Parts: sequence; structure tokens; C-alpha cells
Amino acid sequence: MLRWMKKSNQNDSDAYTSTIDGMKKVYKKFVRPLEELYRYQEFYSPLLTDSDFDAPPTVMLLGQYSTGKTTFIKYLLETDYPGLRIGPEPTTDKFVAIMHGEQDQIIPGNALVVDQRHPYKVLTRFGNNFLQRFEAAVIRNPVLQGLNLLDTPGVLAGAKQTVNRGYDFTGVVKWFADRVDMIVMLFDAHKLDISDEFSQTILACKGNDTKIRIVLNKADKVTNQQLMRVYGALMWSLGKVLGTPEVARVYIGSFWDQPYTNDDNRKLFEMEEEDLFKDIQSVPRGSIVRKLNDLVKRCRIAKTHAYIMSHIKNEMPVFGKEAKMKQIIANLPKIFQQLEQTTGIPAGDFPNVEEFQEKLKTFDITKLAKLNQGMIDALDKMIATELPRLMAQVPQDQELANDDYMMSVRKRE
Amino acid sequence: MLRWMKKSNQNDSDAYTSTIDGMKKVYKKFVRPLEELYRYQEFYSPLLTDSDFDAPPTVMLLGQYSTGKTTFIKYLLETDYPGLRIGPEPTTDKFVAIMHGEQDQIIPGNALVVDQRHPYKVLTRFGNNFLQRFEAAVIRNPVLQGLNLLDTPGVLAGAKQTVNRGYDFTGVVKWFADRVDMIVMLFDAHKLDISDEFSQTILACKGNDTKIRIVLNKADKVTNQQLMRVYGALMWSLGKVLGTPEVARVYIGSFWDQPYTNDDNRKLFEMEEEDLFKDIQSVPRGSIVRKLNDLVKRCRIAKTHAYIMSHIKNEMPVFGKEAKMKQIIANLPKIFQQLEQTTGIPAGDFPNVEEFQEKLKTFDITKLAKLNQGMIDALDKMIATELPRLMAQVPQDQELANDDYMMSVRKRE
Ligand SMILES: Nc1ncnc2c1ncn2[C@@H]1O[C@H](COP(=O)(O)OP(=O)(O)OP(=O)(O)O)[C@@H](O)[C@H]1O
Ligand SMILES: Nc1ncnc2c1ncn2[C@@H]1O[C@H](COP(=O)(O)OP(=O)(O)OP(=O)(O)O)[C@@H](O)[C@H]1O
Ligand SMILES: [Mg+2]
Ligand SMILES: [Mg+2]
Repeated sequence: MLRWMKKSNQNDSDAYTSTIDGMKKVYKKFVRPLEELYRYQEFYSPLLTDSDFDAPPTVMLLGQYSTGKTTFIKYLLETDYPGLRIGPEPTTDKFVAIMHGEQDQIIPGNALVVDQRHPYKVLTRFGNNFLQRFEAAVIRNPVLQGLNLLDTPGVLAGAKQTVNRGYDFTGVVKWFADRVDMIVMLFDAHKLDISDEFSQTILACKGNDTKIRIVLNKADKVTNQQLMRVYGALMWSLGKVLGTPEVARVYIGSFWDQPYTNDDNRKLFEMEEEDLFKDIQSVPRGSIVRKLNDLVKRCRIAKTHAYIMSHIKNEMPVFGKEAKMKQIIANLPKIFQQLEQTTGIPAGDFPNVEEFQEKLKTFDITKLAKLNQGMIDALDKMIATELPRLMAQVPQDQELANDDYMMSVRKRE
Repeated sequence: MLRWMKKSNQNDSDAYTSTIDGMKKVYKKFVRPLEELYRYQEFYSPLLTDSDFDAPPTVMLLGQYSTGKTTFIKYLLETDYPGLRIGPEPTTDKFVAIMHGEQDQIIPGNALVVDQRHPYKVLTRFGNNFLQRFEAAVIRNPVLQGLNLLDTPGVLAGAKQTVNRGYDFTGVVKWFADRVDMIVMLFDAHKLDISDEFSQTILACKGNDTKIRIVLNKADKVTNQQLMRVYGALMWSLGKVLGTPEVARVYIGSFWDQPYTNDDNRKLFEMEEEDLFKDIQSVPRGSIVRKLNDLVKRCRIAKTHAYIMSHIKNEMPVFGKEAKMKQIIANLPKIFQQLEQTTGIPAGDFPNVEEFQEKLKTFDITKLAKLNQGMIDALDKMIATELPRLMAQVPQDQELANDDYMMSVRKRE
């Protein structure tokens, strides 16, 4: 990808770092204290740490075996990564996170999940069999500045992925699919047979449809008419498997450094490659916009949560707290309505009533806290001033970035 | 299509005629008398007349308005048909059956449905509004020897087809879809927006999936990359609408006599056109094979029906026929099993029990007839000798034709 890379990459990278640092700071100063006070983590998701912000944007490669995933990565990087193996038989047998570092090295899975600098801690739950099939390949490469790649083992047709591998393969794919920024699915134009096993893997990516990019690889290995048949058949099947009305973006070409076998579509393939590489290059920007959006969303939920919990605290009598709590739980839909009016928070920002009732049932009443309007005002001010300032730092395609941001804000209004 | 047409067409046409005549003869001599004796038409479908065999194979064109259906027909025929209108606005406002004849003429719908030579009698049930929008265009053209074309009004987006047209448009499409031999659906690469209304029309063709051919027309009007996007999006949607695992065959090109706007895909378009025209040219042969298959199927059903009805007759006492019939209806599943063993007819040849029970409830007991083993033996002998002889007459791709025939026979064994 080096030849496609924008000159400004180094500057971008600095700007990203400073935006991330900004997010860490505002989160620690304005959001996390509010979350701690009202026990956010017991109702929603864990409190964030620096490594959650640091996690670099990642592009995951997925596909049946020998579709050219590892070759694709090699072509992107214009070099091998440590431990890389390519071959016509099933070769890659690990999940390999390929990341930037000064020194080439391989970090085995067990070391990776205990390293605070990586966001992989939770992967321990997939067990030791998985951790032995997970590693990081560190390499000094400009493409990897601000972008991780994830090579994966090819899906084998006719085999129970989980039984054969000794770990929950689909579960791991799903975990990554939920967290990475782009999923590149490779198909082999020369040998298109979407196995049931791979359909399962595609389904594991559901809910992340917008992240999916399809690559019809080795497209120069067939005649033009065959290519049309194969491409048509691929879209026909994918439309049914993914089921979204939006058509996934497909890139047709041959993603390695060899000359084309069939030259008829040279122009098309070259344009497709250019488009795909631009698409991948925009991942860091997209990722930071997404992180900012997530932060805005989190702020709004934290604020709403503060109002709900302090309201409950306020209702508590000196005696008979438990009975009162039961009453509050039963009355929760009414309470939410009432709070909507007094605070002006839109209905859409309130949590799901039933789920919240469940959480309240086991909540420790002594942990309830009074309203701290000062903290909420500070948070509001931060959302109004600091976040737009951070947004303005995001490099490139400024308008687009702002559009994305505005849209996500508007939707919740 | 003239330039694609095989030289042997005239000979073929004669062979078809003689095969059809043969079918009419064996049906009248061996099958129809048996059907009449055991009241076949009260349980299955009407008795056949000569015009049912004569009905020439038909290719129906379907598509949203201005996708180029009428232009496509003009291109096939290399001439206009009487009444033809082409234009960028919705132009064709009728169903037009284009057929061969010595004299150019237009036959209006009301005349067409009363003409014994045409199989359109039942279309009267779609009412006068429809008949005013139905006509035949007769023209002397070698392409139409042994092949009818059916031009249709373009589907309008955002309009209730039935309300706006004054007749059950989808119902008419469905009626034709069940009867024609090929359905060519046109899409405009330049303006691809599959309206809900057209999806409805596609659904009306369900159950006839193997007849469907897709044409992505005006493919030279867009760039190569746009074409891939459009084609991908088309397959994506069609896969979902049709829902079959088999991918419909798509022909990509520009089906008119103008030079290509974008020449990049000339080779592809030309090959696609050649394939499609070959496909259309094979319709008459395919149609006659289908008619022979239908006749074999009908013979087997007629024979099974004869055994069932004569068995019932045999069971009838002198007094208490009505009560006995009630008992027989209740016992029908057992009777079918028993007949399977005594006659050796495979279970798959028996009708649906519940439906047959319903029919028996209203059947006039006095119409029951005794077993006529002589007629059945004659029928068996005809199936074993006459039908294969007729099959052997079907011209071209002889093996394929026989394969088709054998397969359909084998499945029922
Ligand atoms: N664009 C291409 N055109 C033709 N052949 C290719 C292309 N890319 C890769 N190949 C060949 O396909 C084979 C498989 O490649 P590779 O090992 O990169 O696939 P993979 O998807 O990583 O497979 P696995 O899932 O087993 O790791 C190799 O022989 C490679 O040389
Ligand atoms: N292959 C083609 N490339 C470019 N333009 C075409 C092509 N075929 C037809 N057209 C143009 O598209 C327009 C519509 O053509 P035509 O009337 O044949 O479509 P139609 O599907 O029959 O429409 P309707 O449903 O209204 O009858 C006309 O202007 C025609 O010249
Ligand atoms: Mg590999
Ligand atoms: Mg028309």
C-alpha cells in the first residue's frame, strides 16, 4: 500500500495521538468520576482505561483457506511479517495481530493478554487452546503507523471449526468483528464455493455489516465471462446471507505483486485496488471519529444515569429503604417519564426499563448518591466545548468527519 | 437474432410439427378415452384439445418501463412488429403476443380469446379492461417460426399496478409466467432501481425460476467500475427476492443495433449476446421436450386414476352406495397403500389423499366405471413404444433431449 499512502501520514499520526490524549484527559476528568459516583459499571459497561482509547484501529482479514489473506497483507505492507507463511494448502494456523514497533518480534498470545498496553485481556476467556493460536507480529512499517492488521486462519470447508481447532473459532471471530474497524472478506474468483462453515463465519460478523468489505481476489485467473458469473453468484449468495438492503462494497482484483494473467480488466482492477487502499487508509480517521462518537454517547448515558440514581436516592426514606426500592422498581416507567420532563433529557437517552429494573433488584442501596449538579454542569460544558475542539483536530476530509459526528449527535436529539 | 439462427431451422420446424401431430394423435387415441371413462377432469385438469398441443413456445419479456423490452424484441426480429412503439417514457401499454403469419396484422384481445387456434380462451376471466390491453401482432419473420414473443407493459414504480391499469396486472403476469417457456427480465444498468412494484412482479414468477433469464441491458452506458457496482447490486437484490440457491443466469450487454458507447467490454457483451440468443433459440426444442414430459406425466396419472376409480366401483354394493362411499373416503389412505401393492404403481404417482377425499365427496356415484384392463394395457404399450419414437424425432442436441426425458421418467420410478 506504500505507494498509495498520503504524504501527510506522519502529521496525521501525530494529530491522532493528540486527539486520543485529549479524549483520555476529558474522560478521566469529567466522565469517569460521574460514572464512579453513580456506579455506572454495574448498569452498563466497565469503566474505561487508557488502553481502551489507545487500541489502534484494526483491519481484520477473513476468508476460506488459500483465498490469499496472508498474501494480501504482504502486498499491503510490501514486506513479510515475522512468522508469515503462504502456500496453497491451509497455512496460517493462528490469529496474528500485525502491529507497528521499532524491533521485529513475535509476542505469543499468553504474553499478549497480560500486557496492559494491549486491549486483549478479555481474550483469556477463550482458553489456552486459543491463546496458543494467537500472537502479535511486531514490525517496523509505515503502513502500520496508526493501523493494526489481523491475519486469521482460513475457514476449512466440511470441518467443525470449533471441534477441530479446540477453541470457539466463531466466538473469537465474533469478538474481533465487534471490535475491529474494518472486516475484509476474501473470496477466490478461481475457486468460489462458499462453504456452510464460511457462511457461519460471515454470520458471526452480523451487526457489523457496515464494517464489511468484500474482496473478489485472483480475478485475473478467469475469463471475463467467468468472472461475471462468479461475481454474480457471490453477490447472489451474500445478499441472502447478510440480508441487508445495503449492498456490501466489493473490490475485484488480484492483490499480490505478480503481473495479471488475464489483462482484459487491467484498468478495472487497478481502479478497484486504488479504491480499496484508500478505503483502508481512511480507517484511522474513521476509527477516531467512531471513538469520539462513542465518547459522546457515553457522556449522555452517564448524565442520564446520574439523574436517575440521584432521583432514587432522593426518594429514599430514613426507614424502610428496601420496601421503597421495590416500589420504585415497580414505578420505574413513570419515574422515567417524570425525569424526561424535569431534566429535558430525550426519551431515547433513557435505558431499557426492564433491564434497568433487573439491575436495580440486586443494587446495594447504601451505594446510592445524591445529585451533584456541579459535576453534571461541568460535563455539559465539556461536551459543548472540548469535544468539538477535539473533533476539529481530526485530520483530513474534515467536513466528512464533522458530518459523521453531527449525524450521530443529531440522531440522539 | 437472424444472424445467430441455425441453418437447419426450417427442417427443425417441420420436425416439431410432426412431433406435435404425433402427440395429438396418441393423446386422442390412448389417453383421452381413459380420462373420459374415469372422469379425470373432475379430479385433475380439463381434457386437452388440439390447441393445447399447438400452443407455440413463448418467450415473455418483463421489466420496469423503458428498460428496453420493445427495443430488445425489435433487435431480435431485426424489424418492427405491427403497433410497436419505443420511447423514453412508458410506451408499451399492452400485452402483445408477437407471432408468425403470412400477413402482417393486429388481432385485438377480444378476437384473440375466442379464436380456437390460440390457447388464450381462459384469459377472458381477467375481464374486458385487460382484453382491451391485449393483442396479437402477426408478422412474417423467420425468428417467429416455432417461437412466440410476448411484449409487456413496463412496470411503473410507485403505482398500484392493478388500480392504475384497471385489471389484475400481477395476476396476468403470473398466468403467463406459468405457461410461457422462458421469462426474460430486463434491467437498465444505467438506471437500476428495483421498485417494490417490480419485486412483486418478480415474485409472481416464483415457481418458474428455471425459466427466468436476467438481462442487464444498456451496460455500455456506464463505466466498467459502475457496471460492476450495478451488476453486484442487482444480484444482491435478486438473490434475496428469488431466494433460490441456484443463481439465475444473467446476460450483460446492450441489446439494440446501435454501436457501444463504452467499448471496454465489447468482447464480453458480444459473447453474452451470442449465449443469450442461443438460449432463446433452444426454447422450441426445450418446449417440445417439456410437452412430451407433461404428456408422460399425464399418462401415468390417468392410469393411476383408472385403477383407483375402478377399484372404488368394484367395492360398491348393490344397495347402500352412499354409505359405502363415506367408508371408502375414510379408508382412502389404506386403499392407496393396497393399490400400490397390487398394481405396482409407485407411491409418488398417487394423488394427494386429502384433496382426493374432498373431490370424492361431491362425485356422482353413478359415473363410476369398471376396470378396462385393455385400455390400460394399450396405454402402457403406447408409453413404451410411441413416446420414445416421438422423442427421437425432436431435432438437435438429441442426447440432451433424451437425457431430460429419461430424467423425468426416472424420477417417477
Ligand atoms: N492474487 C493472487 N492470484 C493468484 N494466486 C494467489 C493470489 N494471492 C495468493 N495466491 C496464492 O494462493 C495461495 C494461498 O495464499 P495465502 O497463503 O496467502 O492464502 P491464505 O488465505 O492466507 O490461506 P490460509 O487461510 O491457509 O492462511 C498461495 O499459493 C498464493 O501464492
Ligand atoms: N440497449 C440500449 N441502450 C441504450 N438505450 C436503449 C437501449 N435499448 C433501448 N434504449 C432506449 O430506452 C428507451 C426505452 O426503450 P423501449 O421503449 O424499448 O423500452 P420498454 O422497456 O419497451 O419500455 P415500456 O415499458 O415503456 O414499453 C428508448 O428511448 C430506447 O431508445
Ligand atoms: Mg494465511
Ligand atoms: Mg415497450
